[in-house]
Amino acid sequence: MLKKLLDQMATLKRVQNVALLGGVHGNEMSGVFVAQKFMKDPTDITRNSFKTTVLMGNPKAVEKCTRYIDVDLNRQFSKENLNATNIDASYEVQRAREISNALSKDFGSPDVVLDMHNTTANMGNCFIIQDKQQVLSLHLINYIVKKAIHKAPAHILCVSNPKYTYNCSRCLAPNGIGLELGPQPQGVLLAELFQRMQELVINSMDFFEAFNSGATSDSFQADVYNIMEKVDFPRDSDGNITAMIHPRLQDKDWEALNPGDPIFLTFNGKTIGYDGKETMFPVFINEASYYEKHLAFWLTKKETFNVPAIKVQ
Amino acid sequence: MLKKLLDQMATLKRVQNVALLGGVHGNEMSGVFVAQKFMKDPTDITRNSFKTTVLMGNPKAVEKCTRYIDVDLNRQFSKENLNATNIDASYEVQRAREISNALSKDFGSPDVVLDMHNTTANMGNCFIIQDKQQVLSLHLINYIVKKAIHKAPAHILCVSNPKYTYNCSRCLAPNGIGLELGPQPQGVLLAELFQRMQELVINSMDFFEAFNSGATSDSFQADVYNIMEKVDFPRDSDGNITAMIHPRLQDKDWEALNPGDPIFLTFNGKTIGYDGKETMFPVFINEASYYEKHLAFWLTKKETFNVPAIKVQ
Repeated sequence: MLKKLLDQMATLKRVQNVALLGGVHGNEMSGVFVAQKFMKDPTDITRNSFKTTVLMGNPKAVEKCTRYIDVDLNRQFSKENLNATNIDASYEVQRAREISNALSKDFGSPDVVLDMHNTTANMGNCFIIQDKQQVLSLHLINYIVKKAIHKAPAHILCVSNPKYTYNCSRCLAPNGIGLELGPQPQGVLLAELFQRMQELVINSMDFFEAFNSGATSDSFQADVYNIMEKVDFPRDSDGNITAMIHPRLQDKDWEALNPGDPIFLTFNGKTIGYDGKETMFPVFINEASYYEKHLAFWLTKKETFNVPAIKVQ
Repeated sequence: MLKKLLDQMATLKRVQNVALLGGVHGNEMSGVFVAQKFMKDPTDITRNSFKTTVLMGNPKAVEKCTRYIDVDLNRQFSKENLNATNIDASYEVQRAREISNALSKDFGSPDVVLDMHNTTANMGNCFIIQDKQQVLSLHLINYIVKKAIHKAPAHILCVSNPKYTYNCSRCLAPNGIGLELGPQPQGVLLAELFQRMQELVINSMDFFEAFNSGATSDSFQADVYNIMEKVDFPRDSDGNITAMIHPRLQDKDWEALNPGDPIFLTFNGKTIGYDGKETMFPVFINEASYYEKHLAFWLTKKETFNVPAIKVQ
């Protein structure tokens, strides 16, 4: 029995460098203000066993309170962009290089990136991972969700589907996690979401400190939602939307969507049903910044699997 | 008795020209899409006894899904701006002139302006008037609130306080009314709010048609909230905010705020209480676009008065 338990135990490298990013989108205010607070006074996120760096992702966009200046920064962290040196690149490509350089030069490549975002969708506390093999990330999420005093429905979203991966800041570390808290309008700071974000970050530091000190994290069963499909709004030949998210779908992120369920309502009051063949779980329903990306919501499938216990090597 | 009733009856001029504006702020989506719909097909807002014109306030800002390009259009309708002819004026000043000219030249000065807006604040259906002497406007609001199937808490906000009036599109007509529907994030179209906005507009046309046809509108008691004071976020010497709207104030628009009630929460978790001496009614709490205007919320006082019955001259 003991042998079996030990067999299931994964030993992982010590966490040495944690990067905390806010304001990668300049109008997502929880991350902007949590980052500003910890840049001024990092006491609450400083631990003995690892280094933490806080960066403001897109300072010009933060100043203008807009998502980006030229292009979406959180799509610019490709190897091509980061390795190129052209000085005529867009502001965000230059900023992606600066962030990447700051993290790798200043303290070695980060083990963890916590990238703080908000969404206008009713996503609660959403944790985005690149891959379900991010075992340390999954343990971290499990810990900070359980420990939270400022509660919200919590879910893990996995974007490993090669059709839909994108070159985001999370890709800078093997344990890159997007903290997507919602619902919050762009340009608005809600105290409740600030508190949720701040607590998730501080508790993350506690988790890494305990992990580095040799604490064992027990195995557990994780539910992960895998992105399967992108759904756009109905549009006319000029690209203008011809329908809205149906009131019965609005705010129903993470809930089962069954064939025939209403998804859109035209401006003339006609309901459009979901024409898929199986139950899916929609997420990022009616996110403001996705209109220009031709995205009304994502469809995901739920997967449950065992995450092995871990301890530090 | 009959004489007394007749004494209280105000006779008002026939409504000849109604202007419907959407997209005066380009990221307030209910007005943008209701205006687009009625520009394409005005059937639902066309009546026999008066003319209706629909205009998109700020088409460039609508295209970019931003509040404005250079300056806030809804502050540019001053006589100075409208009478000047300089071609180097900002886009919005030029646009204010174009709107004013279009409305006065195309069909004579409008009797009514219905200006469709959204707010991120929990304002429900808010009707903004310039003056409580807008008797026709008050009857209109009374009618469309009662007739609505798509319900929301409804209130009238009066900005006659000379300290806080501003040169907005409503000023183009003696019966200028701002329809401020919330809560809705900037850049998001909620079907529920689209339906509310559309219904208020269509029912407005019914009201004017009935009024022009000689229907009497009975006297009633109106509650109006008068703007008394502007409250800014606490800020440091650099102008950065140092506190958020308190969770216990968030979404409490139109509710009584008493001395000592929490209004702000600092980033370190300290509550700041309301230091006023009397009960007030806060509105536009945590509206996204007001951060740059140094405005966390307005304080209003409630006034109840009799509105005389009306009929057409």
